[in-house]
Amino acid sequence: MQGKYKALWLNDDNFLEVIDQTKLPFVYETKVLKTTDEIVLAIQDMTVRGAGVIGSVAAFGIYTATMEVDSFDELKLKAKLIRDSRPTAVNLMWAVDLMMNKLQDSNDLTNDSLKYAIELNDDEAKESQKIAEYGCDIIEDILKEKNRTKINILTHCNAGWLAVIDQGTALAPIYEAKKRGIDVHVWVDETRPRNQGASLTAWELTQSGIAHTIIADNTGGHLMQHGMVDMVITGADRVSASGDVANKIGTYLKALSAKDNNVPFYVAIPASTFDFEIIDGVKEIPIELRSEDEVKYMRGIDEKGDVTEILITPKDSPAINYGFDVTPARLVTGLITNKGICKANIEDINLKFNV
Amino acid sequence: MQGKYKALWLNDDNFLEVIDQTKLPFVYETKVLKTTDEIVLAIQDMTVRGAGVIGSVAAFGIYTATMEVDSFDELKLKAKLIRDSRPTAVNLMWAVDLMMNKLQDSNDLTNDSLKYAIELNDDEAKESQKIAEYGCDIIEDILKEKNRTKINILTHCNAGWLAVIDQGTALAPIYEAKKRGIDVHVWVDETRPRNQGASLTAWELTQSGIAHTIIADNTGGHLMQHGMVDMVITGADRVSASGDVANKIGTYLKALSAKDNNVPFYVAIPASTFDFEIIDGVKEIPIELRSEDEVKYMRGIDEKGDVTEILITPKDSPAINYGFDVTPARLVTGLITNKGICKANIEDINLKFNV
Repeated sequence: MQGKYKALWLNDDNFLEVIDQTKLPFVYETKVLKTTDEIVLAIQDMTVRGAGVIGSVAAFGIYTATMEVDSFDELKLKAKLIRDSRPTAVNLMWAVDLMMNKLQDSNDLTNDSLKYAIELNDDEAKESQKIAEYGCDIIEDILKEKNRTKINILTHCNAGWLAVIDQGTALAPIYEAKKRGIDVHVWVDETRPRNQGASLTAWELTQSGIAHTIIADNTGGHLMQHGMVDMVITGADRVSASGDVANKIGTYLKALSAKDNNVPFYVAIPASTFDFEIIDGVKEIPIELRSEDEVKYMRGIDEKGDVTEILITPKDSPAINYGFDVTPARLVTGLITNKGICKANIEDINLKFNV
Repeated sequence: MQGKYKALWLNDDNFLEVIDQTKLPFVYETKVLKTTDEIVLAIQDMTVRGAGVIGSVAAFGIYTATMEVDSFDELKLKAKLIRDSRPTAVNLMWAVDLMMNKLQDSNDLTNDSLKYAIELNDDEAKESQKIAEYGCDIIEDILKEKNRTKINILTHCNAGWLAVIDQGTALAPIYEAKKRGIDVHVWVDETRPRNQGASLTAWELTQSGIAHTIIADNTGGHLMQHGMVDMVITGADRVSASGDVANKIGTYLKALSAKDNNVPFYVAIPASTFDFEIIDGVKEIPIELRSEDEVKYMRGIDEKGDVTEILITPKDSPAINYGFDVTPARLVTGLITNKGICKANIEDINLKFNV
């Protein structure tokens, strides 16, 4: 699993190694996570982020935790720490629960958990490839319908291979489009306050030589009004049984604008993103409240090339930092899933996933 | 006109002195603008910004220019430089045209232009006070209807006294609410890429002791979904004859969200913001395209307290920077004007302003 274009892999000593995503795009640095505490901290401080990658790290986190315990009951306590590390990403809970279910009757927690974590990752990679193909089919349909050769896709936050094994979700169809020789240009929402678009998505697209332009989050509406966006694709952190989409804060505003301008709005997700316990996403999905410092301070490189953090607001003005919002299903054109395109409604989701 | 809570004034030598708004909220510094070139540059580099203040600076700019010319014809050339310094703010063109019309038959360009510029400013200040009162009446109506004592108002960009003489437009009703003893809290959109909300509006509200919270531009939709916003008030740089509103990029997205959540969306403007030449704002209002560096670089203070600029994107990723967008009249609940509340449609605007 090692190499470029991977967010995580097992190093030569069989420890989990991850790209430190808080340092991108300025510094490429990796971290080896040797303990449960290091796993939990890496999820919380966003060394690793992105729904899928958090799930993958959690799965390897269970494997890491087995080295600190003598029994399944002790492992349960460690699993809870990992499961609770962030509230909104359902993949995190899903991955921990899946691993723990499989390990219930294990006689060799470490070896079995390693095997299951690798399996989980391989499955995610296959799902990502399916999302790439189904999503790219839509791109081709749109180009055919418009009788054009170049497509402009807007995306929010980062849902590429830094977020989901192996090609991402929202970016997977874009990578596939490049493979198929389609002329693709991506509008990259900066994605305040943590700038995952301006840093991670722009960095990923640069690595792959895909044409892109960074825009302030405020800009998408204007572009859509003027016919400069052919489709929107985002990822999701959790999708309710009825198709409501929890994703990075600001996604809802782009969905409203897409609706107002007849721009197709797609959400790309693996099966693990569904939360069938939840019907009304707006009312029921818990929204993570993060530190106000993420709004008040900004990280970048100064003229000397050093990574620096600066204060961008009056010192004493308070800020509030909701990490996600929920886009009602009525604004979603379709879900690009590993099982094909799914309508964002309870019937179609049930038909494809909940049987 | 000198003192705190003023964006510009004449200094003791009768030169125009302005707050350098690019330095706020970190450093309070003023600049004396002694030549037409300095006036033009101050408008272009946003030393001064905000529809009304640009108009006021332009009016005093004509006065400044009279000291460099020997005839009205020469003054016309200088006036054109000022008029063309930024494309979207109609107040700029309005102020220059008004001044030049009045000066046509003048025998004393310098003294007359000074008199007319002061008159223009005094008129703007009176209009701002009217906007404050009419807008605050709406705040009281909303509180009455909801049977509450505290109001949460969301605003975008800066339309306070740093933007429009003397109390601003969008913030004027908020200042008035404070005067009337109403418990008011303001959600301050950061307003990327230039952060006029996080810097200027937050700074203004801090100066006046008004409760406020800075949010990423992505956040307003979530707040509105959850009943945390009672009304939106923004300013405008130009309003078409039919009520379409050109304002800072991102305003349109907040208007969509307000509509989707039944939150009243008001735009506060003096009469000079109307452009009766334009009917369809989305199609006809020219949108200023500014440097990509405003997206790629961010200004703030480092840990030593020094004002620093940092790069926040991959060095080679391009960015694009539209300064404004246009909110269609159908999304605007009403225009708060110096002549009372006006519906955002051609009939009501004609009735109140274009007769």
